[in-house]
Amino acid sequence: MDIVRRILSMREIARKERESGRKIGFVPTMGSLHEGHLSLVRRVKELADIVVVSVFVNPKQFGAGEDLSQYPRDIKRDADLCIAEGVDYLFHPEPEEVYPDGHATIVEVEGLSRKLEGKSRPGHFRGVTTIVAKMLNIVHPHVAAFGQKDAQQAAIIQRLVKDLMIDVEVLVLPIVRDEDELALSSRNRFLTVEQRRAAGAIPRALQAARHVVAEGIRDPEEVVASAREVIEAEPLLKVDYVELVDPRDLNPVTAVEGEMLLVLAVYAGETRLLDNAEIRVS
Amino acid sequence: MDIVRRILSMREIARKERESGRKIGFVPTMGSLHEGHLSLVRRVKELADIVVVSVFVNPKQFGAGEDLSQYPRDIKRDADLCIAEGVDYLFHPEPEEVYPDGHATIVEVEGLSRKLEGKSRPGHFRGVTTIVAKMLNIVHPHVAAFGQKDAQQAAIIQRLVKDLMIDVEVLVLPIVRDEDELALSSRNRFLTVEQRRAAGAIPRALQAARHVVAEGIRDPEEVVASAREVIEAEPLLKVDYVELVDPRDLNPVTAVEGEMLLVLAVYAGETRLLDNAEIRVS
Repeated sequence: MDIVRRILSMREIARKERESGRKIGFVPTMGSLHEGHLSLVRRVKELADIVVVSVFVNPKQFGAGEDLSQYPRDIKRDADLCIAEGVDYLFHPEPEEVYPDGHATIVEVEGLSRKLEGKSRPGHFRGVTTIVAKMLNIVHPHVAAFGQKDAQQAAIIQRLVKDLMIDVEVLVLPIVRDEDELALSSRNRFLTVEQRRAAGAIPRALQAARHVVAEGIRDPEEVVASAREVIEAEPLLKVDYVELVDPRDLNPVTAVEGEMLLVLAVYAGETRLLDNAEIRVS
Repeated sequence: MDIVRRILSMREIARKERESGRKIGFVPTMGSLHEGHLSLVRRVKELADIVVVSVFVNPKQFGAGEDLSQYPRDIKRDADLCIAEGVDYLFHPEPEEVYPDGHATIVEVEGLSRKLEGKSRPGHFRGVTTIVAKMLNIVHPHVAAFGQKDAQQAAIIQRLVKDLMIDVEVLVLPIVRDEDELALSSRNRFLTVEQRRAAGAIPRALQAARHVVAEGIRDPEEVVASAREVIEAEPLLKVDYVELVDPRDLNPVTAVEGEMLLVLAVYAGETRLLDNAEIRVS
């Protein structure tokens, strides 16, 4: 595996691979890789001839007072994991090269970026869509994979790719959960033992919502309340939001029918945890 | 020459040309082609194997109350001109396909887009950068050409391409002027005979500014005033702005030195005319 530090080198490598007729798969990450990322790598490896993983802790998607400096970084461990998965190129650029002096361009998916996470983290998705557009232009992959754990991010990136007519197939792959059903996240390592135990209420809350829908509840507020109650029963957790939304536009549903997404964000101390589940009524 | 109406067809054609090892040159336009556009086509034809011209009157770069519906459209004439120049593909998509329902993504070059034209036409450059990003993703050219007549647009597109790492060489080519020295523009056809005669003051104003600098004037305000006076002497013209700026950041210069750009926007009746000239002190 090659570790590529320079943008122009990465572009040139990707161009040559493409011109040689090889299909390029791409998994953009902020590093601190876990089984969730690796599940993306494995799927992309099945679909492409060459796998590129980027590790870049993107400063533009962190707000003031957020955990940019604390965000876990361990490029050596990430590289070892990538080697073990048969990744071909690990792209790990410097922030100074990604955002040189005078950088002024932003890419934003309006509407979708303002809801849910966007309300709690203004500017976050603008940072995400800007870096994803840049990364896709550098690597120019045939296929790129993102995790359903960040459901809103996945919806926004699908919209971005469609709107800007970026020539890439976007895969959104299922959440990978730990033995206690907590969704894998690089931020889970910040949890104390007690917080970690309390966080088990998050997947239980999603299950509770599914359960009441299966039982026949058809009032969206009741469904949301059923999930919220489970989390609020844990004194170590604090709900930021719990919403039952349409997966296409992320607007709250007005009726429990068709395909829906229960999305939530919860604080355990300073640590923000996201999770979501599809809920379907046919 | 093929006229291509569908986005996916254009993308597929461009992909095949590129895969066949041919170099693609691209001239994005709003149609109503004149010698300025054709000078871009000719230069691109020298540099590339295949020339794509797009004709798309982009609704997103017109503000409320601007001349979108009046903007001249004559695709048959444009096609004839392109054929005569040996253009290979004329890409002429429908607005409904370029901006389908739910389109939500914008691309913006902050800072640069707010000055000069951006002050008078809020949102204009956001519309320009969004469509240019889309067009470059569809056609994926090796080289794309823009006119120096729209100096601010050219500066913004160079910044866009650099910031988003779009894999294209951007050419900015000189203003083409008519016999009376008026810069060619699709909007010139709206001028009455009297307005057209009055508009001759615009290139004379640029000359006047160059002249005073050559004479040794080193006060930016005096340079600007010398140009402004020439225009204000014409009752049929109304100055929107005249500024002497740094070509890199479009900020007004504080000293007459090095490379500068005198930029101006003038109304003749309802018709907005732009022009600019490089001014250099070595």
